[in-house]
Amino acid sequence: MRSYDVVVIGGSASGIVTATTARAYYPDKTVAVIRKEEVAMVPCGIPYLFGSLDSLDKNVIPNRIFSDNGIELIVDEVESINPNEHTLTCRSGERIGYQKLVIATGSRPYVPDWLKGADLEGVFTISKYAHELEKVVSYVKSVNKIVVVGGGFIGVEVSDELASKWKKDVTIVEARPYILASAFDELIAREVEELLKKDGVQIITGARVKEILGEAGKVRAVSLEDGREVPAEAVILAMGYRPNSKLAEEAGLWINTYGSIRVDEYMRTDTQDIFAVGDCAEKRDFITRRPNPVMLASTACAEARIAGVNLFRLSTVKTFNGTIAIFSTRIGDTTFAAAGLIESFALQEGFEVVIAEFKGIDRHPGTLPDVHSQYVRLILSPDSGIILGAEVIGGISAGELINMLGVCIQAKMDVVQLATMQIGSHPLLTAPPTAYPVIKAAEIGMRKMRKGA
Amino acid sequence: MRSYDVVVIGGSASGIVTATTARAYYPDKTVAVIRKEEVAMVPCGIPYLFGSLDSLDKNVIPNRIFSDNGIELIVDEVESINPNEHTLTCRSGERIGYQKLVIATGSRPYVPDWLKGADLEGVFTISKYAHELEKVVSYVKSVNKIVVVGGGFIGVEVSDELASKWKKDVTIVEARPYILASAFDELIAREVEELLKKDGVQIITGARVKEILGEAGKVRAVSLEDGREVPAEAVILAMGYRPNSKLAEEAGLWINTYGSIRVDEYMRTDTQDIFAVGDCAEKRDFITRRPNPVMLASTACAEARIAGVNLFRLSTVKTFNGTIAIFSTRIGDTTFAAAGLIESFALQEGFEVVIAEFKGIDRHPGTLPDVHSQYVRLILSPDSGIILGAEVIGGISAGELINMLGVCIQAKMDVVQLATMQIGSHPLLTAPPTAYPVIKAAEIGMRKMRKGA
Repeated sequence: MRSYDVVVIGGSASGIVTATTARAYYPDKTVAVIRKEEVAMVPCGIPYLFGSLDSLDKNVIPNRIFSDNGIELIVDEVESINPNEHTLTCRSGERIGYQKLVIATGSRPYVPDWLKGADLEGVFTISKYAHELEKVVSYVKSVNKIVVVGGGFIGVEVSDELASKWKKDVTIVEARPYILASAFDELIAREVEELLKKDGVQIITGARVKEILGEAGKVRAVSLEDGREVPAEAVILAMGYRPNSKLAEEAGLWINTYGSIRVDEYMRTDTQDIFAVGDCAEKRDFITRRPNPVMLASTACAEARIAGVNLFRLSTVKTFNGTIAIFSTRIGDTTFAAAGLIESFALQEGFEVVIAEFKGIDRHPGTLPDVHSQYVRLILSPDSGIILGAEVIGGISAGELINMLGVCIQAKMDVVQLATMQIGSHPLLTAPPTAYPVIKAAEIGMRKMRKGA
Repeated sequence: MRSYDVVVIGGSASGIVTATTARAYYPDKTVAVIRKEEVAMVPCGIPYLFGSLDSLDKNVIPNRIFSDNGIELIVDEVESINPNEHTLTCRSGERIGYQKLVIATGSRPYVPDWLKGADLEGVFTISKYAHELEKVVSYVKSVNKIVVVGGGFIGVEVSDELASKWKKDVTIVEARPYILASAFDELIAREVEELLKKDGVQIITGARVKEILGEAGKVRAVSLEDGREVPAEAVILAMGYRPNSKLAEEAGLWINTYGSIRVDEYMRTDTQDIFAVGDCAEKRDFITRRPNPVMLASTACAEARIAGVNLFRLSTVKTFNGTIAIFSTRIGDTTFAAAGLIESFALQEGFEVVIAEFKGIDRHPGTLPDVHSQYVRLILSPDSGIILGAEVIGGISAGELINMLGVCIQAKMDVVQLATMQIGSHPLLTAPPTAYPVIKAAEIGMRKMRKGA
């Protein structure tokens, strides 16, 4: 029986980062990654296969990351975990021993049980497996009328690619009153909707899908609860993802109400020598401390780094203190980004909030080419001044600007620190120093709180 | 005699921000700004008048900022301050009274006394006054062979514009062994040099200028101490700036050895009711606590916000805790940026340092269009793990990435916090979550320190 000091089940972002971190911190330990497929897709790049990237090959995580780091890649599927024996049984029949096990099995597209017609030809989910993606991509490329069910990030990014790059006739159907409702407050989400419409995407919000209608086994339309029918030659179900925790559940690990594997701050499960990271592992919100079903490659990688370091000796400094959801996306030349608690969630949680916002520009003077507006919105806690969350609409630099705001939230900075913050500025790269929107918004926030007090 | 609650001398970046902050915090106070010229240039935009911006009008700070904020703009020149009387005397003969005075007189180009030929026709400095800039811009546009003396940011940015946009024959002469030596370590500076050369700029380093040679009152060449002569139809002296502190000095204010007006953490001078901000005010390094003659619009604006808030009642939370120099510039499509102490300065100050670096990409997968490499270099203190400084070479997003690193330095974060930091990632906006260079560099730093321990 082959045996390794560390075995990681799953070889996408979090599995790879756990393995490389383990090798870096414990260079004398042997590490193997077991993955179902020979190749893995860059998860966040998947929507761009529907336009910007012209083949699946361009979206592959290079396997040399394993050889470069002295990690063994085993292509097989784990069928069971035996925690007492510290062994795994694979589909090939092979048994593999481990000293430490990391479950990084990710998530799979969610399709509700009640949804009729999901099995019709032309109805797809956005899987993370290359062989499945290949089918969706080539099918939707060959038709014109496409309905995307679900206006989350995957639905939105895929729709925008299909409409703007391949000029498809795309309709998003979203049950909630506006799209991206798990990531942005309405104001921001409405701006995304406007840009999608400009790119030719049709959007139906506040409408629940009843069933998928077919003809001769092939999809024909999406029928809505309000009686409408949206004709479709292909349907993409982008209704969210669920943790792949069946393997863990069968092995007796503690699974929470979201179906995620319970973990502590060191990413340890409740079972000896077993860790879990990424989409399959429980998330706890940094601020509210509640379970939070967010699934982001960036969060997964942060967890993976924690797990990798803590495998053989616990590090008091390297713990995971809760998930700060940091989102960013790009529609046309506009970036939409959020970090921490958005207003709607903060209110829902019972926080009092002060909203402070400022709209400026992302280069200066505003006469320079490629200037984009930059809007910053801060969600502040009036009792402490602490930054609960932030939202940004801007140009290309907003992707790192939201990371800066993410650091501020992680460092539990307050609005005074933000307002007195020193930044660097450059005409071609940032907002002007006189009107840097993050600082201006913080100043407005301070004054609002002063008046409130 | 006209009298105002707040009078600001100087109406560029820091003067304006002090005035608007004062109006926002103390809406019942009257505020006037006295400025020599009717229009003011966006300071950081000045180099781009030599190429990207096709007229001075495009680089003007709009004067409606005064009317919009209920601030009076007085176009005049202050000739003396009388601190006992709380009055100013202007060139027009008018006397103006103040309750609180803010000196924001900025800086002027430095030309050494010993430099012969600086008064020849065709020899210029880069002033911040529109009427002076107009002359330089039109003169250099009309000739071909231009020598820029000094390889700091102004020298570098102007040279790159002249060579790449206007296709001029440009040579930079720099006394130190490499350009931008006050901002970057050699490794980074050498890359800037390579890109400048690609854009057609010639660079002579380690060479001191002896004098400017003329013929019939017109510049002919720059003569170097090593005997070389560099032919020139125009010469731009970009040898740094000096604080405009004469007015303050004559009024008896304390001036430090750099010629800057001494200020405390509230930006107060040693004289009752007089504040100073921006290039004319003393800077103290955030880490080394030593005076630091850095002059940046972004720093000036941070100081201005502090002064504005503290004019009438001191705020214990709003103090200026020292300058973190955060630089960024762009040559072609590459951004160079630094925050905090670079390695050479840290060593000079007697710090032990650990250097941790990582080179990745700024979008992912690397097959996407417009991908740029992203190199991050951390300067770490091995005893505490605290981040002393950071340098970045990257694409457009590096301007905000360095601001994120600047926040980390301001928050006195250590390498462990950086390595366990949560970030957001997006294919079109950031490095991949699996290899985010800031985090990878931090991990490398942690391991280096561990080995060292």
